[in-house]
Amino acid sequence: MGPRTMTRDRILGLDEAAMTAARQRQGRLTKPPGSLGRLEELSVQLAGITRRSVPVLREKAVVVMAADHGVTAEAVSAYPAEVTAQMVVNFLAGGAAINALARLAGARVVVVDMGVAALLESHPALLDRKIAHGTGNISRGPAMAREQAEAAVAVGQDLMKDLARQGVDLVGLGDMGIGNTTTASALTAALTGVKVPTVVGRGTGVDDGGLARKTAVVERALAVNRPDPSDPMGTLAKVGGFEIAGLVGVVLGAAASRVPVVVDGFITAAASLVAARLEPNVRPYLIASHRSVEIGHRVILDELGLEPLLELELRLGEGTGAALAMHIIEAATRILAEMATFEDAGVSDRA
Amino acid sequence: MGPRTMTRDRILGLDEAAMTAARQRQGRLTKPPGSLGRLEELSVQLAGITRRSVPVLREKAVVVMAADHGVTAEAVSAYPAEVTAQMVVNFLAGGAAINALARLAGARVVVVDMGVAALLESHPALLDRKIAHGTGNISRGPAMAREQAEAAVAVGQDLMKDLARQGVDLVGLGDMGIGNTTTASALTAALTGVKVPTVVGRGTGVDDGGLARKTAVVERALAVNRPDPSDPMGTLAKVGGFEIAGLVGVVLGAAASRVPVVVDGFITAAASLVAARLEPNVRPYLIASHRSVEIGHRVILDELGLEPLLELELRLGEGTGAALAMHIIEAATRILAEMATFEDAGVSDRA
Repeated sequence: MGPRTMTRDRILGLDEAAMTAARQRQGRLTKPPGSLGRLEELSVQLAGITRRSVPVLREKAVVVMAADHGVTAEAVSAYPAEVTAQMVVNFLAGGAAINALARLAGARVVVVDMGVAALLESHPALLDRKIAHGTGNISRGPAMAREQAEAAVAVGQDLMKDLARQGVDLVGLGDMGIGNTTTASALTAALTGVKVPTVVGRGTGVDDGGLARKTAVVERALAVNRPDPSDPMGTLAKVGGFEIAGLVGVVLGAAASRVPVVVDGFITAAASLVAARLEPNVRPYLIASHRSVEIGHRVILDELGLEPLLELELRLGEGTGAALAMHIIEAATRILAEMATFEDAGVSDRA
Repeated sequence: MGPRTMTRDRILGLDEAAMTAARQRQGRLTKPPGSLGRLEELSVQLAGITRRSVPVLREKAVVVMAADHGVTAEAVSAYPAEVTAQMVVNFLAGGAAINALARLAGARVVVVDMGVAALLESHPALLDRKIAHGTGNISRGPAMAREQAEAAVAVGQDLMKDLARQGVDLVGLGDMGIGNTTTASALTAALTGVKVPTVVGRGTGVDDGGLARKTAVVERALAVNRPDPSDPMGTLAKVGGFEIAGLVGVVLGAAASRVPVVVDGFITAAASLVAARLEPNVRPYLIASHRSVEIGHRVILDELGLEPLLELELRLGEGTGAALAMHIIEAATRILAEMATFEDAGVSDRA
């Protein structure tokens, strides 16, 4: 199944006419041209994505996808695997960092069970899209079957299209899954070809022994599974995770719906990388919210040519960096929409 | 008149007990310790400033002080001097960048005429605190008399204390004054002793010829005025500006009222540097919102040991970076106030 089939919808390039109009308007606003730096670039990108010369963002959401990882059997995380399910409950109760930051950003949190290895009590705010009770242990075999990866991607696409239909016009990517920095490291090394130690970090906080173990586990996962980087879906199935696969679908669905995608940390960046390998046209729909302390995150940002908006030494995930950056993204649109021009305000332009 | 007299109120150090309590609470919240990076540090600083282990910010303001600079006679700016007054009118009409960004941040904009070289029509939202119609040309003599500098600082202190009494508990610094990057460059070189070319940037956008002219003008200002760095008030009077002097007072008044101060770009950083030289205890009350492209800004941030929250290639001033960063500052307080602890949420802590 090729990438064209996978996306199911065509993903078009950005709207050049809207971008040109936005760029021209920036030049007429009452400020020295270029003096709002990255905000000005961002406003032009948002114009291109939304096809509006003055883009307006009305409804924000952070999609937090959760799943478990069989590789936790190798003691790669500082936290026990049951924390994935416990944190889903915490998200639903509104007590996690993403809840606090999304409330402040005015974004809703959409919690999705993509493959938590526990029976979660049903909850009106929980979307049950469980593919399986956690993945296989990638250091011993594939994470999932190819069909499961495809199904998980389709779940994300469908969900995102529903959200877009409901009016969501800015989406942040969030993840929860104990063990998923190990999986993301394997995916990143497999798809970019960089050496494993350059993508393995401390995750939630393993010590030196844990870091060495994690590196060895990722090396083994690649040796055992032999993922083919020219087959991103196959690579995702072999060394990915259900939440990562779901997020790949969210990226594809958002780009197809012309909704800007706010990438969070390492896990969501890995999902974005897979999406960009499946469909290169998604690249300009991505906005990197921050550069985390996870070293593999930097590798992906460089690979995708994304310059993050924030660098606050975050390493939590859940979409926290994405939620924080939404303010800056909204600011870019407000500048374009609300500022007076030199003519309107009667301010003298430069000589 | 010594610094102790100038501040009129004592400025105390941060509250260590509140900081310890905030730090301990961060360790119990449902996230790996340290995983929210700079947000965690910031929450501890805010606890120390406000003396509350769980600080709450209720009312934000950006104080935008405007004044003219006699040095514009030397053709140091890309814009004509009358733009200062025109932009004040734009601020009052709500059409400037700071208006858009402050609205988004939920902050009010307090516009103060500290020394605009024009008769501004009175407006309910304009505070007339004019010391004089612009400063003298610093390349030929002092900017102002020492008594004027002292009066301008006192204006800022009084204004800030009024705002604090009205409930403002987070203040951003903003500036407007064509020519003020030249003045700020002279102040920075005088107070830090660094070479003039390391603090002179392009401001609103002068070309290479303008940059050379500006550098020569700053050199001349220092040669003519011979400011003494051990006398910050005298240095402010010789090569400062009325808006800068007013902002020095805002910093002092905020620290005395235990209100966190959000520094914007180069001009407000120069004011913060003067304040810190007058009263070293203000330093921990400062939060650097961003690192601008003006090279002198970096010199001051290094000198004060401030690590900015944002780096978005801004170079506008007006308090725009400060307004943008308020979201991140508020986020730091929300994390501490709203997140569940491991115990409360029933989430397993690390082994």
